[in-house]
Amino acid sequence: MIAVLAGGVGAARFLSGLVGVVAGSEVTVIGNTGDDAVLHGLHVCPDLDTVTYTLAGAVNPETGWGLAGDSFGAMDALDRFGVATWFRLGDRDLATHLYRTQRLGAGATLSEVTAEIVAAWGLKIALLPMTDDDVRTRLRLADGREVDFQEYFVHLRHGVAVESIDYARAGSARPAPGVEAALASAELIVLAPSNPLLSIAPILAVPGIGEAVARRRDRVVAISPIVAGRALKGPADQLLVELGHESSAAGVARLLGPYASVLVLDTADAGLAGAVSALGVRPIVTDTVMRTPGVAAELARVTLAAVGKAR
Amino acid sequence: MIAVLAGGVGAARFLSGLVGVVAGSEVTVIGNTGDDAVLHGLHVCPDLDTVTYTLAGAVNPETGWGLAGDSFGAMDALDRFGVATWFRLGDRDLATHLYRTQRLGAGATLSEVTAEIVAAWGLKIALLPMTDDDVRTRLRLADGREVDFQEYFVHLRHGVAVESIDYARAGSARPAPGVEAALASAELIVLAPSNPLLSIAPILAVPGIGEAVARRRDRVVAISPIVAGRALKGPADQLLVELGHESSAAGVARLLGPYASVLVLDTADAGLAGAVSALGVRPIVTDTVMRTPGVAAELARVTLAAVGKAR
Repeated sequence: MIAVLAGGVGAARFLSGLVGVVAGSEVTVIGNTGDDAVLHGLHVCPDLDTVTYTLAGAVNPETGWGLAGDSFGAMDALDRFGVATWFRLGDRDLATHLYRTQRLGAGATLSEVTAEIVAAWGLKIALLPMTDDDVRTRLRLADGREVDFQEYFVHLRHGVAVESIDYARAGSARPAPGVEAALASAELIVLAPSNPLLSIAPILAVPGIGEAVARRRDRVVAISPIVAGRALKGPADQLLVELGHESSAAGVARLLGPYASVLVLDTADAGLAGAVSALGVRPIVTDTVMRTPGVAAELARVTLAAVGKAR
Repeated sequence: MIAVLAGGVGAARFLSGLVGVVAGSEVTVIGNTGDDAVLHGLHVCPDLDTVTYTLAGAVNPETGWGLAGDSFGAMDALDRFGVATWFRLGDRDLATHLYRTQRLGAGATLSEVTAEIVAAWGLKIALLPMTDDDVRTRLRLADGREVDFQEYFVHLRHGVAVESIDYARAGSARPAPGVEAALASAELIVLAPSNPLLSIAPILAVPGIGEAVARRRDRVVAISPIVAGRALKGPADQLLVELGHESSAAGVARLLGPYASVLVLDTADAGLAGAVSALGVRPIVTDTVMRTPGVAAELARVTLAAVGKAR
């Protein structure tokens, strides 16, 4: 069994490579829910859905999230009511949120609903939210405002300086059912190439999860989402610098070193292998920019081999 | 001021004729909410929305409800989750229900939200739900089942025999703000050509409304939805017979006579004028089949003239 801590687009691409190399039924994904939002009264789980849609082969290939070929009739029509529609939910995507919201309203847990959604899409992986509790990533901006993740990421297009990040209510959250067992028994735990501060850190912040991962450190492989100092997608590079870290594979090694014994870094960063090593993290250099499914599959193979789980 | 008790399609067509003859700001519509349903977690008000969409010129002309040119991506995608999707909500239509549901969830009353929706569509009429309370038209079927209106009307396509109708919780409902004042001050009250048992009766069943209408009986004009013994749309004819009434303009006069002093009936039913008269209801014979906007406007003119309010 392989457990993967996952954010959104980068994690989803890695996972689609992984399920080309091992059976989906061997994979347990522990997804970030700190980015969840209630939009137009609907409970939206961007990271979980990005994983589901990507593995189902249904994701919008241009954005990396949402559904391919979706329409936006509902959002267009909502404009009439003067409500904020900067978060564009596609019409077919809305079905997922309608279903989830209705089931949560009927008393189902997020774990249960997520399993139902994954099954409805015909996937074999286990997709677990990090918690069934209500954890929200909050960002304090340099201008003094405090905003939710989606407000920062989508509405403000992460074009504002961040002063600090808070994983609100993480302290009292419990890991979702199955999370701790998956981490305890996994032969390999992967920290997917996701934003370390906004995607991986909220998962690790849930009491029990960070400790469980650290306890298995010799079986934990992180994949750097920073290549040549830049994030492939999103604001990870800028955020790392704003919050006093280094925007490089070495900076990632420093942040994730307490949890991972191995860091996979891109060939472009081969020169940082020594610095990573000096931090007590074993570097593995390979191509990490998943331009094609073949690259993602090879990255999965290298990751599996890192702790002796070659296929 | 003119008050109109309204169901769905027939009422909406009459109202579009009416607002061609008098200013919309002179019209208060009291809409049936017994047909309201919670579908996919969304609060749907079919009759109120049919009135709004029709007066906005946005209604689907083929069905008489829903929005013209709407798409059904969300409903198609919901099929994946195995939930009942027999009530087809269009994607643009969904925006109305999302907005309403979110506002109700935030503590707004149905009256408030309805006024907001009507304003968002640029309409000048006042559209009042009959009540802000939760009244539901329930039907006991001949096979013993008891179902909600939409289950009967849409899912079962009103193709089953009905034994009795109950306006659940009507007894403890209060008229929405403005309803009683509108009825007390109106120069003319119209019972629109809607199903007398499923659209008009639930409104009259709200304590205070039936009494207020009956008190103004000399100013109340009903329009028969039955022409030549048949309902123009829906199951009114079949229901009238199943529940022991007569499926004719005379049967409508008998049902609505306690509330209306005048019944407008179709030229096809001119032969029933005497029977209507004998029931103490003054018959007015004109063309009531609103095939064109011109017919609807003329029907409105005749209705206005019926109580001396000619234009």
